[in-house]
Amino acid sequence: MKFGGTSMAGIERIRHVADIVSREAERGNEVLVVVSAMAGETDRLVQFCKEAAATHDPREYDVVVASGEQVTAGLLAMTLQNMNRDARSFMGWQLMKASGVHGNARVESIERGLLDEALSAGQICVIPGFQGATEDGRVATLGRGGSDTSAVAIAAGVNADRCDIYTDVDGVYTTDPRIVPRASKLNAVTFEEMLELAGAGAKVLQVRSVGLAMREGLRLRVLSAFEDLPGTDIVAELETNMERTAIAGIAADRNEAHVVLTGIADRPGTLSAIISPLAEAGISTDMVVHAATEAGTASDLHFTVPRANLAKAIALLKERQPDLGFTDIRSDEGVAKISIVGVGLRSDPSLAATLFKVLAERKINLKAATGGEIRASVLIDENDVDVAVRSLHTAFGLDDKDVK
Amino acid sequence: MKFGGTSMAGIERIRHVADIVSREAERGNEVLVVVSAMAGETDRLVQFCKEAAATHDPREYDVVVASGEQVTAGLLAMTLQNMNRDARSFMGWQLMKASGVHGNARVESIERGLLDEALSAGQICVIPGFQGATEDGRVATLGRGGSDTSAVAIAAGVNADRCDIYTDVDGVYTTDPRIVPRASKLNAVTFEEMLELAGAGAKVLQVRSVGLAMREGLRLRVLSAFEDLPGTDIVAELETNMERTAIAGIAADRNEAHVVLTGIADRPGTLSAIISPLAEAGISTDMVVHAATEAGTASDLHFTVPRANLAKAIALLKERQPDLGFTDIRSDEGVAKISIVGVGLRSDPSLAATLFKVLAERKINLKAATGGEIRASVLIDENDVDVAVRSLHTAFGLDDKDVK
Repeated sequence: MKFGGTSMAGIERIRHVADIVSREAERGNEVLVVVSAMAGETDRLVQFCKEAAATHDPREYDVVVASGEQVTAGLLAMTLQNMNRDARSFMGWQLMKASGVHGNARVESIERGLLDEALSAGQICVIPGFQGATEDGRVATLGRGGSDTSAVAIAAGVNADRCDIYTDVDGVYTTDPRIVPRASKLNAVTFEEMLELAGAGAKVLQVRSVGLAMREGLRLRVLSAFEDLPGTDIVAELETNMERTAIAGIAADRNEAHVVLTGIADRPGTLSAIISPLAEAGISTDMVVHAATEAGTASDLHFTVPRANLAKAIALLKERQPDLGFTDIRSDEGVAKISIVGVGLRSDPSLAATLFKVLAERKINLKAATGGEIRASVLIDENDVDVAVRSLHTAFGLDDKDVK
Repeated sequence: MKFGGTSMAGIERIRHVADIVSREAERGNEVLVVVSAMAGETDRLVQFCKEAAATHDPREYDVVVASGEQVTAGLLAMTLQNMNRDARSFMGWQLMKASGVHGNARVESIERGLLDEALSAGQICVIPGFQGATEDGRVATLGRGGSDTSAVAIAAGVNADRCDIYTDVDGVYTTDPRIVPRASKLNAVTFEEMLELAGAGAKVLQVRSVGLAMREGLRLRVLSAFEDLPGTDIVAELETNMERTAIAGIAADRNEAHVVLTGIADRPGTLSAIISPLAEAGISTDMVVHAATEAGTASDLHFTVPRANLAKAIALLKERQPDLGFTDIRSDEGVAKISIVGVGLRSDPSLAATLFKVLAERKINLKAATGGEIRASVLIDENDVDVAVRSLHTAFGLDDKDVK
């Protein structure tokens, strides 16, 4: 079980979390709980670090920010004990070996010995999320949102049957309920769909944790820490008896910018020569569309980059203009990427066709379009987002019948 | 070097601490710094624990409250780095093995390997005070004020030449400056004097840390974290060239209560039969005066206990009244214990005589009086404290000549 910062914010809420954990133990299950810091606490600690030194040693940053989860782990353990549950907390360095960059470390391994011992003794294990220790004994954190990844790694490390992520939403929705009030909660979604939804701008879980659960074959579940409602199962494959539409959801991402390079020479390797330097600079690209002309003469290359990286991307490309041999760069920040995601796309080509048809009916102009195995995306004017998402949500049969 | 909570309260103050540390390193010294949590932070964490569970597992309490020093250790290390000093923090569990009661643990040993390595590499070591780990890897704290003890233990563990305790007062004074504005700062005081002064109510250092430094033969120094002033050396023996009066200081303790048992039978073992059960119940006694009559018949026993323990002490004694065979218990909370402390008392009996003479001249009634090797104490009415302390301070030549 993993509980986020909102559910750990203050003793009253921690008591509620202890209730949920206690009920799980009452069902006869062995329980491990991974906790985040109280909401706002990590920000407070990060602020201290910023004030202390503009550029700071990430190893010291890790020591400071890891303290928040240590506090909530101890508090949850004593709250459970107060409810007559046998429970104990652990420290991150006792359980998780991490490596790589401090502040954004990788999970290397889970030392399950101590956990197995406690579980055998009937104890509930409470574990601070977001942190482990490096081989040389220094605290290392997994990056913001890293407690999801901690939970998945710990669950996989002890061969848990399930990893339940309790959060402030009650599951994964077909789209952003702020855009579509009739968005419905999904009973189930596949790992791949979840990854595509996250990549397309829907944030429920840290992307890394989903990838890790997929590789480990661990059954994930997202559910509410505040209301006792069924959540969303995240599974390797949808079971045939799972009632669900072919499309899992529709995501809208307003954080991308559209880049067009005109007059690209149609030579082998041109695409790689353009995209690779961006990737090396840590700039991710999406929706790469290169429509080569039949004659093999110059053509245009479209792609998107995160808006925050646009200036850097353009500078980088201009620097290499002589080598890359394009005529001009155009860019547009007033765009949004709309994606339909679903395993159904694999077998049913009519779904992508529906996407285009619905938008055409609404007279929404497509600036670019790409299709993947389980995701199809279009780039449209930012002002058209709400109309596009609502129309598609209805067209794909996703509207919740219980919502007026 | 050890810095307390007031000096670590906020980044601005931590920067000032880094300045002091940096200057020490500049003098060519190898430096280890032990830090407290930011002032108020430990109280905040203790409050969380109280809210979580009225009676809580001290092992979980330790996990929660130990986090405060982890934060300041990381912040000081990065602040030093920002001033171009090579520095790194450690975690309590890496350096100190502790044992005994969680929340009030004993220092078992210091693992100096990591520290030596860092010092050899020219690094300043920053260490969270107040905490270590037990043999089975659980965080254990040393009790409130335990960072002083951490500092002394670490200093002794690495055979440091000196342990400097930076605090919000600039040294040890001849008496409480709030009572006597002309109180003067002592250049030097012996460990024994310091222990007696602490026992007599003067709080500058945690008593345990003084006892530990005495046993380890470590030179201690108390000095201001805010002003660049000479502090007070705490040493095994006063050097003959140290300019100092025979009396180190005068302490007033208003936290004691006076207990009198009347009609005590003069049998061997009576005193032990009364005091031992109190000691076993964790109630300390002082100023035990048993004036046996010449005839060996019944007499009175006087002693003091902390006011907070008075009710418990009386209940305990009444329970045993049939065995102990006293007639009545009287008690008085309106008293104060005034002590003169100084190694000079060993060789000069006129000093104790001066104590009695000065109080008699002021017509201050003595409820009880005891003399030890380097301390003489009297019990007086609480209302007479200020007059008594001021008169004695002048009579023993302690008034600061530079203060008007």
